[in-house]
Amino acid sequence: MTTKTKKTTVVEKKLISLADIVIHAADRSKDPTFQIPIRALSNVFFNEKKGLIEMGAKKQERSFFNVGMAKRFMQTVLVADALSELQRADLTTSLREIYYRTKHTIKDSHENTFDAQDESDPVIEDLEVSLATLREELHVSAENRGSIVGPVVFGDDGDRVDCSKLGKGGYSVPSIVEPEYLEIRRCTADFLLLVEKGTQWNRLSEDKFWRRYNCILLTGNGQPPRGVRRLACRLHEEHRLPVYVLVDNDPWGYYIYSVVKQGSINLAFESQRMAIPKAKFVGLSSADPERYELPRNVGIKLNEKDIARAKELLNYQWFQKPAWQVEIKRMLASGLKYELDALANKDFQYLTKKYLPRKLKEKDWLD
Amino acid sequence: MTTKTKKTTVVEKKLISLADIVIHAADRSKDPTFQIPIRALSNVFFNEKKGLIEMGAKKQERSFFNVGMAKRFMQTVLVADALSELQRADLTTSLREIYYRTKHTIKDSHENTFDAQDESDPVIEDLEVSLATLREELHVSAENRGSIVGPVVFGDDGDRVDCSKLGKGGYSVPSIVEPEYLEIRRCTADFLLLVEKGTQWNRLSEDKFWRRYNCILLTGNGQPPRGVRRLACRLHEEHRLPVYVLVDNDPWGYYIYSVVKQGSINLAFESQRMAIPKAKFVGLSSADPERYELPRNVGIKLNEKDIARAKELLNYQWFQKPAWQVEIKRMLASGLKYELDALANKDFQYLTKKYLPRKLKEKDWLD
Repeated sequence: MTTKTKKTTVVEKKLISLADIVIHAADRSKDPTFQIPIRALSNVFFNEKKGLIEMGAKKQERSFFNVGMAKRFMQTVLVADALSELQRADLTTSLREIYYRTKHTIKDSHENTFDAQDESDPVIEDLEVSLATLREELHVSAENRGSIVGPVVFGDDGDRVDCSKLGKGGYSVPSIVEPEYLEIRRCTADFLLLVEKGTQWNRLSEDKFWRRYNCILLTGNGQPPRGVRRLACRLHEEHRLPVYVLVDNDPWGYYIYSVVKQGSINLAFESQRMAIPKAKFVGLSSADPERYELPRNVGIKLNEKDIARAKELLNYQWFQKPAWQVEIKRMLASGLKYELDALANKDFQYLTKKYLPRKLKEKDWLD
Repeated sequence: MTTKTKKTTVVEKKLISLADIVIHAADRSKDPTFQIPIRALSNVFFNEKKGLIEMGAKKQERSFFNVGMAKRFMQTVLVADALSELQRADLTTSLREIYYRTKHTIKDSHENTFDAQDESDPVIEDLEVSLATLREELHVSAENRGSIVGPVVFGDDGDRVDCSKLGKGGYSVPSIVEPEYLEIRRCTADFLLLVEKGTQWNRLSEDKFWRRYNCILLTGNGQPPRGVRRLACRLHEEHRLPVYVLVDNDPWGYYIYSVVKQGSINLAFESQRMAIPKAKFVGLSSADPERYELPRNVGIKLNEKDIARAKELLNYQWFQKPAWQVEIKRMLASGLKYELDALANKDFQYLTKKYLPRKLKEKDWLD
């Protein structure tokens, strides 16, 4: 139980400023109104120079004395109040618990403040955007977690966590890795390898790949959750670590890489804090089956969904680089996708002993 | 890269004994035949005395000179060979990689040894049962992972991992926690709390609940994966830790608890090594909404699937205890299920400060 006596945080001040809007408007008998940036494709663009998917400047008003907006306005105030409570008490929680915390039946009515979580989640996103704070700075965590090993030392709740001394299991990445919760005390790695799947991370950790190549191994056991992406971003920015992304050779692998690199359309407002425009794709590439002599029978036939998705990717602005067009078109032409697991067809340690060493030596990656 | 010079392991010997069967039969010009225990409901029973779902003694033969069995026989030998390779090299891998490793096109034919992973997975299960070894002892890992904090010290790859000094993030539980991979060096906890969901585990870890109640907090971030269950089982058996299970109040929560406690029908052959017959259910119970004054509006209406599943559970032999019949029938009568997250409706720290302290003090659990 944290009982730090702490100063009002920047985030708390931002949340209080919302309450001030309501009070000031009431004082002057005016309609309280918030300005909320629009979170829609129409307000999202790819900033080619920065290599980031960003949000534009369009805003919408939300006011209390408007039949269509009154409920959403009330909900916004309720959620802001719960978020202030988290700040004051220095606690973190989940989206779901925010929903439960703010749900009640309005006095003398059968009306609930919120009927389902899909009403409270967008309000939290509204507040993230309006206050220009990450969800994690609002102390709201995502659910997934990840694992990390390698030459990096964290400070967590006063403990010194040395990720080079945690066996093959490693440190369990918390969902909130903001500096107030997780300090990066020391990092002597040369690069960071962000591994999509747990299987390959296990292989590399078991083989102590990180020791031989002086790197950090990080995984979210699947599509990297926010905490994992944010940690990669912090290590990249604060310690200038190059980041390499290791994913399957399929449209979903490409997509995961692109989200790590330039952010996503849905979360465009967070790209600045989460995306890593210099991240490199180390594979699997559609050139690898030939280069590494993988038998065709370990390829998996592309299904209709794969093909449709690959064609979509071909049109994305951030996949317009010639090398990427070649990469995606070669996959489509072969009609096959390959999982990293297929490297085991050669040898259980092929990834550790052949594939990655050669990739790194030949600097064979896509940007 | 592990380069221990190691003795032939017990498991390796068992795998070699399969090859011996083939060689001996060939020497005597006989049909090589394995005896494989039957993994089907007809060969599963609930051992009331032990409180375990166990496998019966029925076996089937698998022989080579039998048109219907030849392919499966060949596959069994291939997989056994790959598993021997893992033992010799002291490596672990995943089910999926075993599939890729053993897949090839048979010479002068278009026939693959395996066409899909659903052909190799059951062969691995056959071998687990036949050789009476856990999948993890065969060095095959599950994919999911978990997190652990509290007064327990592990030895992992020569590192001393003290889970009371890893902040709130904790140690990332490896998928294989057999003694050869993970040593329990010291454990001074009074009990283990197995938490279904990451959200509640985060809450308890952040609040240092484990310090105040001298316990271990373990989660698999959802239905506990094999590694998490096995670790709970080892801590229970080797250090006599009572195990309490914290799940949602719904049929799936009950089911998760029952799998932790007495194993599952599908994996009956592993109950001896994975199940914890003395595990207790600390909630959420269907009595809790009233006892802890949770408002009805945070309950979720049972849907048809919930109701059907709850009725199935009522008929299971291991839910025949009167207290369990009352528990499940009360949920059905109320028409509502409750998530642990709903406790946040009272207060973000209600779980840590009120719910669990009272549960433990009143010994209010189900057996």
